[in-house]
Amino acid sequence: MRSPIERLTEKVIGGDAKKAALVVSETNLYYLTAFPSTDGALLLTAEKAYYLLDFRYAEAARAKAQGVAVEEFTNLNDSIASLLKKHDIKSVYMEYAALPYGQAMRFEGLCRANGAEAVLDTTLDDAIRAQRIVKSEEEIRKICDAQAITDATFEHILPYIREGVTEREIALEIEFYMRKLGADGNAFDPIVVTGGNGSQCHGIPGDTVIRKGDFITMDTGAMLHGYHSDMTRTVALGFVSDEQKAIYDTVLKAQLAAIDAVHAGVPCSAVDQVARDIIEGPYPGTFGHGLGHGVGFEIHEWPRFSPRDDTPCAPGMVITVEPGIYIAGKCGVRIEDMIVVTEDGCRNLTHSPKELIIL
Amino acid sequence: MRSPIERLTEKVIGGDAKKAALVVSETNLYYLTAFPSTDGALLLTAEKAYYLLDFRYAEAARAKAQGVAVEEFTNLNDSIASLLKKHDIKSVYMEYAALPYGQAMRFEGLCRANGAEAVLDTTLDDAIRAQRIVKSEEEIRKICDAQAITDATFEHILPYIREGVTEREIALEIEFYMRKLGADGNAFDPIVVTGGNGSQCHGIPGDTVIRKGDFITMDTGAMLHGYHSDMTRTVALGFVSDEQKAIYDTVLKAQLAAIDAVHAGVPCSAVDQVARDIIEGPYPGTFGHGLGHGVGFEIHEWPRFSPRDDTPCAPGMVITVEPGIYIAGKCGVRIEDMIVVTEDGCRNLTHSPKELIIL
Repeated sequence: MRSPIERLTEKVIGGDAKKAALVVSETNLYYLTAFPSTDGALLLTAEKAYYLLDFRYAEAARAKAQGVAVEEFTNLNDSIASLLKKHDIKSVYMEYAALPYGQAMRFEGLCRANGAEAVLDTTLDDAIRAQRIVKSEEEIRKICDAQAITDATFEHILPYIREGVTEREIALEIEFYMRKLGADGNAFDPIVVTGGNGSQCHGIPGDTVIRKGDFITMDTGAMLHGYHSDMTRTVALGFVSDEQKAIYDTVLKAQLAAIDAVHAGVPCSAVDQVARDIIEGPYPGTFGHGLGHGVGFEIHEWPRFSPRDDTPCAPGMVITVEPGIYIAGKCGVRIEDMIVVTEDGCRNLTHSPKELIIL
Repeated sequence: MRSPIERLTEKVIGGDAKKAALVVSETNLYYLTAFPSTDGALLLTAEKAYYLLDFRYAEAARAKAQGVAVEEFTNLNDSIASLLKKHDIKSVYMEYAALPYGQAMRFEGLCRANGAEAVLDTTLDDAIRAQRIVKSEEEIRKICDAQAITDATFEHILPYIREGVTEREIALEIEFYMRKLGADGNAFDPIVVTGGNGSQCHGIPGDTVIRKGDFITMDTGAMLHGYHSDMTRTVALGFVSDEQKAIYDTVLKAQLAAIDAVHAGVPCSAVDQVARDIIEGPYPGTFGHGLGHGVGFEIHEWPRFSPRDDTPCAPGMVITVEPGIYIAGKCGVRIEDMIVVTEDGCRNLTHSPKELIIL
């Protein structure tokens, strides 16, 4: 399979020697070159891909970046200008969603001053997204490697969940353990919420202490080689009330039914609807977010299992399935797996148990 | 002292009931409200400040965000539109440097559709920057608290630096220890480079093993309550050559002279020049970056000790002083403190020793 840069260049530029594309967002730079940078720029031309970096990164990039000619710059504008002149470029495709407005204005002026037009529409974004939304076998393997760390960490953390321990202590142990297992980092700051905090589905772990009868929701993920993993489990300490049990069972039922509904060609919104229908009957207004999101080079990418995303599921898409029920100030339950869409269904990349665990 | 939101509203909007300002970047939201969000929006009007958040964050924000009315939205565009109508707003100041181009276009259309004009220039950015560039006593205290963790971590890490240990192991222990001491996170991924890697001034810690005769450069910082700290120390293992010693002494001399040159009114570029002159004579072309950068709510902010920044130093500015010498593939030395500018000089916020330590 050709490299991400080769595929993107062919799609956006074809063989047109007068066209170029400029990528500056850190995530897209990482995806395209395997070498992330917050201050670099990748200029794609029909002939060659240039990775422009300053003194701080150029040496390391020459050793690690893939499929590019690394050029060290003192002034980025000057370097871009000289390449536009050298290749006699007439139009430059720009990023849209990630490019800061101020930078867009600067590049637009720079292009104009060098006889080129800046194309500030979604052409380049659309092409990158079309590539990134469907994962290759190699990418799926990397996501599985990241998820293996997340699964192992879940097993590791269960004995730590005891009366009197704080959310923050649990979160910290999760972070450390993932790094010890070789993760490059956490895919996101772990969410650990207990008791009444459980209804804050994106709550920040604090000094709240775990008590018997609490649900503990842990939304965690490891990052490895740029790829993310994402999993949520809700467990209980000591005992659960009948009401808690009923909530848990409803979330699990919704999750299993949604996973069952995934296969190539089904609109993402329809998968969301399957879970939503199961929750909205008994617990109206308690499932306030979408059912899931794509995962890959970013923790939240495309497509979304959401009422507003009608993208048809396609083989190779990696998406979370994470219904939840949140009763404000009282409790919350969420169960989240990552699946990869296949022709006739999906494959679950998450291996941690999800029957209710009462510790 | 009035709150950051009150000061900003007065500066940008004055008492003009027809004007508003819209802030969406995570850092500015954190700075202004004490509650960070990647998907929220802060709408400032003469009368009231609205923090628009979705279901996931609204509950937590009501408990933690300061000086704002939290409004939960289902669709952000609809919420903004209804507030523009309610207050009969005619012009909306937007962020410039941090606002993504795609979002700017979306907000511009939204304003137009609701009878308002989007002001896409640097007015709002300039006002926020003018506030953030000069730190209050409280902000300086928070930066000192973050630096205290960094200093303690440096002391903790020295006994770990032994023959055979890898850069990555050192970096991981630094990260963990900072979190154990209560840091909310690392201010940035720690840089730990040894031997020949030392010339990669922003190198990523890898599997390279520390050997006797190596320099080990550690650029680290803790983050606490949103504020950052930043320090670099270069130490040696076993022994150093005369050449290494001379390089170290030159960097230290440049750093001390630059710190000595700081006082209110001096242009930042002049401080950079003091260090550059000392290094460029004996080691031409080896100091490829600016002398320092502002630190606060972001790890890199304004002003810069750089040949290109003539901002006069003003009391309350917190800036790093970090000269370096990098000999490609051979070795590197950097020494970095954070200082706060005072009327008649500066105060050093960094307390770790910087005479050459040979372990």
